[in-house]
Amino acid sequence: MPTNLQVQLAKRPPPGMITHDCFAVREVPLADPGDGEVRVKIAYVSLDPAMRGWVNDTRSYVPPVGIGEVMRAYSVGRVEASRHPDFKVGDAVQGLLGAQQYAVTKGSPRLVKVDETKAPLERWVGGLGMPGWTAYFGLLEVGQPQPGETVVVSAASGAVGSIVGQIAKIKGCRAVGIAGGPEKCAFVTDTLGFDACVDYKAPDLEAALKRACPDGIDVNFENVGGDILDTVLPQMNVFGRIAICGLISAYNATSPPPGPRNFRAILTQRLRMRGLIVTDWSNRVPEAIRDLGAWHAEGRLKIREDVRKGGLPAFVDTLNLLYTGGNNGKLILEV
Amino acid sequence: MPTNLQVQLAKRPPPGMITHDCFAVREVPLADPGDGEVRVKIAYVSLDPAMRGWVNDTRSYVPPVGIGEVMRAYSVGRVEASRHPDFKVGDAVQGLLGAQQYAVTKGSPRLVKVDETKAPLERWVGGLGMPGWTAYFGLLEVGQPQPGETVVVSAASGAVGSIVGQIAKIKGCRAVGIAGGPEKCAFVTDTLGFDACVDYKAPDLEAALKRACPDGIDVNFENVGGDILDTVLPQMNVFGRIAICGLISAYNATSPPPGPRNFRAILTQRLRMRGLIVTDWSNRVPEAIRDLGAWHAEGRLKIREDVRKGGLPAFVDTLNLLYTGGNNGKLILEV
Repeated sequence: MPTNLQVQLAKRPPPGMITHDCFAVREVPLADPGDGEVRVKIAYVSLDPAMRGWVNDTRSYVPPVGIGEVMRAYSVGRVEASRHPDFKVGDAVQGLLGAQQYAVTKGSPRLVKVDETKAPLERWVGGLGMPGWTAYFGLLEVGQPQPGETVVVSAASGAVGSIVGQIAKIKGCRAVGIAGGPEKCAFVTDTLGFDACVDYKAPDLEAALKRACPDGIDVNFENVGGDILDTVLPQMNVFGRIAICGLISAYNATSPPPGPRNFRAILTQRLRMRGLIVTDWSNRVPEAIRDLGAWHAEGRLKIREDVRKGGLPAFVDTLNLLYTGGNNGKLILEV
Repeated sequence: MPTNLQVQLAKRPPPGMITHDCFAVREVPLADPGDGEVRVKIAYVSLDPAMRGWVNDTRSYVPPVGIGEVMRAYSVGRVEASRHPDFKVGDAVQGLLGAQQYAVTKGSPRLVKVDETKAPLERWVGGLGMPGWTAYFGLLEVGQPQPGETVVVSAASGAVGSIVGQIAKIKGCRAVGIAGGPEKCAFVTDTLGFDACVDYKAPDLEAALKRACPDGIDVNFENVGGDILDTVLPQMNVFGRIAICGLISAYNATSPPPGPRNFRAILTQRLRMRGLIVTDWSNRVPEAIRDLGAWHAEGRLKIREDVRKGGLPAFVDTLNLLYTGGNNGKLILEV
């Protein structure tokens, strides 16, 4: 009997890093698609910082993954069997297909057909997938950058941040990254073309950020939170915008992390701060794919995936790289 | 020789409550208005929470008051001598005239003529003055309340909060106040007509707020910050709006206060938070005066001032009432 390998949530993680016993890799019988369903053979699973929140049993923007359920994940693969009128065998598709070898789905919500002639399969859960859409809508809709303004993005070498800064450049802004270590910073400036990148692991981030942003900060795209956000806040210009996309510094905290000490800047500088989840723009995804794809094709948008081998059994170790800064670019697990 | 009595900043206050030695009440020669100037005899000085920030030597939305300078204050009085074409003797005017008996000014920025036939003089630095304008623009422009939504306002019996909740009611919202002690709460519901008011001094604010907001919170007008904001944040509905108008809980902190622990709600609930200073809408003040005045005349907007005697020598003691919750309604000092 054919089987499907799944990464299932075995128990809720305690505060702190995810441990191996929180997930179980299990073989289950492989289901055939029913009427209106497709079966997708998954090639790549995207590993995202938000996963840490999805397994906590707390109020969030989506219900937590249930114990014994397949771990929620964006994945990309090819249709292997179809009883759905919109999809045929061989179609490349991406969506919330889970961390597993095969997904059987009705095609909703939001199974998106992708074009392998335009970009390799893994890129459709990378820079042209959800991280790219997040950067696109988060920067343009929430940040509303104007030409000549200064845009700061944290986790600048990461999946979302790397694209945020490049879009900022395309829109005529000064793009300043914050990243950990000289290698990542060099990648951000030399390869991605940001105007500057400051190393949060080096001494005196505050002074370094001031040097990199001589005219202050107009837009902050926040992926990290914690001390980094606290360094950015007092340097924000009046009427600046802050897109809160992620707070990864706190995701593995063992006690509730403190809030931003420099919160008062929101009042004194009349900042606009807004939290964002990419699914809020689900109906506009084609717009993001169109622009990102065009910029990528023109060579103006560089995308780097960090594809890891090891298959589904390597899920936990690979995921934890995100929280230690161990990845270089969008982290993806090859199934 | 005629003299003018002024409250001058004598030294910067240490962290904590303002002490008497921070201000000096001094007699200075009374100046005659020069060409293009008016002299105003001040009748009432407004005491506002923001004053604590104005005397700190830190970056804020206005430069700090200088040592030896007249304390910045909104005041109202009558023109006593005029060499300005737009103002004549007897005109009632309000503006940033300072904490003093007389102000000599060119009439800018923003000396506003007020109508004593519509409301008594003190009300023009009260509910129909800057606090009213703050409530008006802060709630309507930042909060964008929709009919049927729930609006929560802290310091609900105060100058700004009392008007915020009443405008929310006028706009068809459920208005919920947060105030300190049963008397203030009774005033907020029974006199001002809020739907509910919870006492932050009573046990379990969280549960009380939940009972008062069974459908969650769509708009929060924040005057206080600290634990109160932290209680509100997790109860905010998705896409809720937070107007940061004041953070009075922190103004007298002796060490930097912690930021909001529940900051993460901004991300998970995709909240929009925006700091506001009323002067950002300076060019639209007539609009606020028109609507507030009309609602007041119709009996739909109740305004209460807490006018204190004692004159300028009572400045410090009266001001400090704001930070201990000792006032009832808009705090004003009669000169």
